[in-house]
Amino acid sequence: MVTFLAGGTGTPKLLDGAGEVFAPSATTVVGNTGDDVELGGHLVCPDLDTVLFHGGGVIDRDRWWGIAGDTTETHAELHRLAEAAGLEGGPRYLPAERQTAGRDIANWRRFSGIAEFMEIGDRDRAVHLTRTSLLDEGHSLTAVTRRLADAFDLDVELLPMSDDPVATIVHTDDGPLHFQAYWVHRRADPEVEDVEFRGAEDAEPTDAVREALSEPVVIGPSNPVTSLGPMLALSGVREALASTPVVAVSPFVEDRIFSGPAADLMRGVGREPSTAGVARAYPFADAFVLDAEDGTELDRPVVRTDTRIDDAADAARVAAACDRALEAVGA
Amino acid sequence: MVTFLAGGTGTPKLLDGAGEVFAPSATTVVGNTGDDVELGGHLVCPDLDTVLFHGGGVIDRDRWWGIAGDTTETHAELHRLAEAAGLEGGPRYLPAERQTAGRDIANWRRFSGIAEFMEIGDRDRAVHLTRTSLLDEGHSLTAVTRRLADAFDLDVELLPMSDDPVATIVHTDDGPLHFQAYWVHRRADPEVEDVEFRGAEDAEPTDAVREALSEPVVIGPSNPVTSLGPMLALSGVREALASTPVVAVSPFVEDRIFSGPAADLMRGVGREPSTAGVARAYPFADAFVLDAEDGTELDRPVVRTDTRIDDAADAARVAAACDRALEAVGA
Repeated sequence: MVTFLAGGTGTPKLLDGAGEVFAPSATTVVGNTGDDVELGGHLVCPDLDTVLFHGGGVIDRDRWWGIAGDTTETHAELHRLAEAAGLEGGPRYLPAERQTAGRDIANWRRFSGIAEFMEIGDRDRAVHLTRTSLLDEGHSLTAVTRRLADAFDLDVELLPMSDDPVATIVHTDDGPLHFQAYWVHRRADPEVEDVEFRGAEDAEPTDAVREALSEPVVIGPSNPVTSLGPMLALSGVREALASTPVVAVSPFVEDRIFSGPAADLMRGVGREPSTAGVARAYPFADAFVLDAEDGTELDRPVVRTDTRIDDAADAARVAAACDRALEAVGA
Repeated sequence: MVTFLAGGTGTPKLLDGAGEVFAPSATTVVGNTGDDVELGGHLVCPDLDTVLFHGGGVIDRDRWWGIAGDTTETHAELHRLAEAAGLEGGPRYLPAERQTAGRDIANWRRFSGIAEFMEIGDRDRAVHLTRTSLLDEGHSLTAVTRRLADAFDLDVELLPMSDDPVATIVHTDDGPLHFQAYWVHRRADPEVEDVEFRGAEDAEPTDAVREALSEPVVIGPSNPVTSLGPMLALSGVREALASTPVVAVSPFVEDRIFSGPAADLMRGVGREPSTAGVARAYPFADAFVLDAEDGTELDRPVVRTDTRIDDAADAARVAAACDRALEAVGA
């Protein structure tokens, strides 16, 4: 048994070839929910959906989000309506007293859907609509995610990190922004001053997550701050990781990064944007997989390989390195 | 100034040619909201939307609902997901304690969106999404409808009958069904035993509706029970109609009907399914427009014309008859 912690695109890309090394039926994926939003009445879980769509063989492989070939009829009409009615676009954050009306899980991340600021495809929207309807019928996000995994015929088990709301709020020189407002609407332009995981102090990992974290854990090359950070902000997750073998793949090659906002975010939270900084952010990691060109010296076992992941063969190579690293620490 | 009461397709079809007789800028349309549903988190207002889409020149003229040429990508995927996940379709009515969570206006008509039992087109959905988002931002249904009317560039004023929830519940030999469950899902098959307008005793017409009802009123050939009934169930509407000139077009030709469920519904509420029955249901009507072949003798002034409406020219002919009937009662 092995458990992957997944957020953003780093770990999902690793999962693309992990099945060659770790049997899917013995693999659990715990997904970040810190960057979820409720948009226009529907709970959107981008990091769970990337795993769902990948597992279902429908992910858009150019973007690593959304469904390949999806249409955007509703999205386009939302923009037409807003423009014709003189309604301003951009993230329309609902007032505090409206944040949880009807759904506690929406807290700190509820946006009106007028001129929808994130592009939601038409088939993609059906997933959010089904998810939200199941929540409204009284099921937990964990139970709902299992149903969706059935619908996409996933061969791994997919779990949200928590059934409680946690919202990644990026504090910037332009004020606090929900992660999606920072990343999608503002294109990571404002300067990051800090990152907050609102709700994390009261949120719990689910029993299913606690059980999954009693197995060896692989942390893929996801962004440590906003893809992994919300999970690590849960004390229950930190405690569990401290007592199980953990291998982490650095998303950096020394101080260079393949893609994404990790460097700005690491700097923003006062961490060095490098493999060394990642190692300090993951005190619970027992071993690391680093790029062959990454000469960083760490105080823990290291397995080196080419860590660039462009396709499933790359992913299988990095997964094999993770397996060797787990062996090195006796898992 | 003239005010039309609209529900179903009868009055909207009349509006298709009414502009030839009544200046659109001096015309108000009050729409039935008794058959609204909240479906998958979005408030769907079929009778308001028929007027919106007709006014915007985009209505599907074969069905007289929905947008011409609309796609149904989300709807199809909702059904695929539900089937793949083993989730039962059909109306999934949310439990009582969930009916108003977050939105009072949803009361008695909130359905989960799993395997969505009404077909919502992709562009159509953008209307419901924008409407619901504006409601969530704190606007009344009246204000929201004005915004949507702007978006569709309507030349008449469109008002919902009330900003309060009223739900048309059809009591049948198979138990109580929300009107849309009876009409769309069950295709009007169960035997009608009674029709209830839940919430009507506490609902108020808006100030804008009261003002509109101080002008001469035209009731088109809509179904008296479920298209007009919810409006007439509001004491404020009945009082207003009693003191203004009202002309009604019978949807019957004696005891025959052009289309729709009006006959079954009239019988179900103990009324004669005929022009005579309509006249008794509309005690506030001061004159009637009947079909040229309708020999019903009424105790109020009658103008006769061919009342079948297949196109805008037909509609203009019936509208002209309404105008003559209003003149006959001194309006």
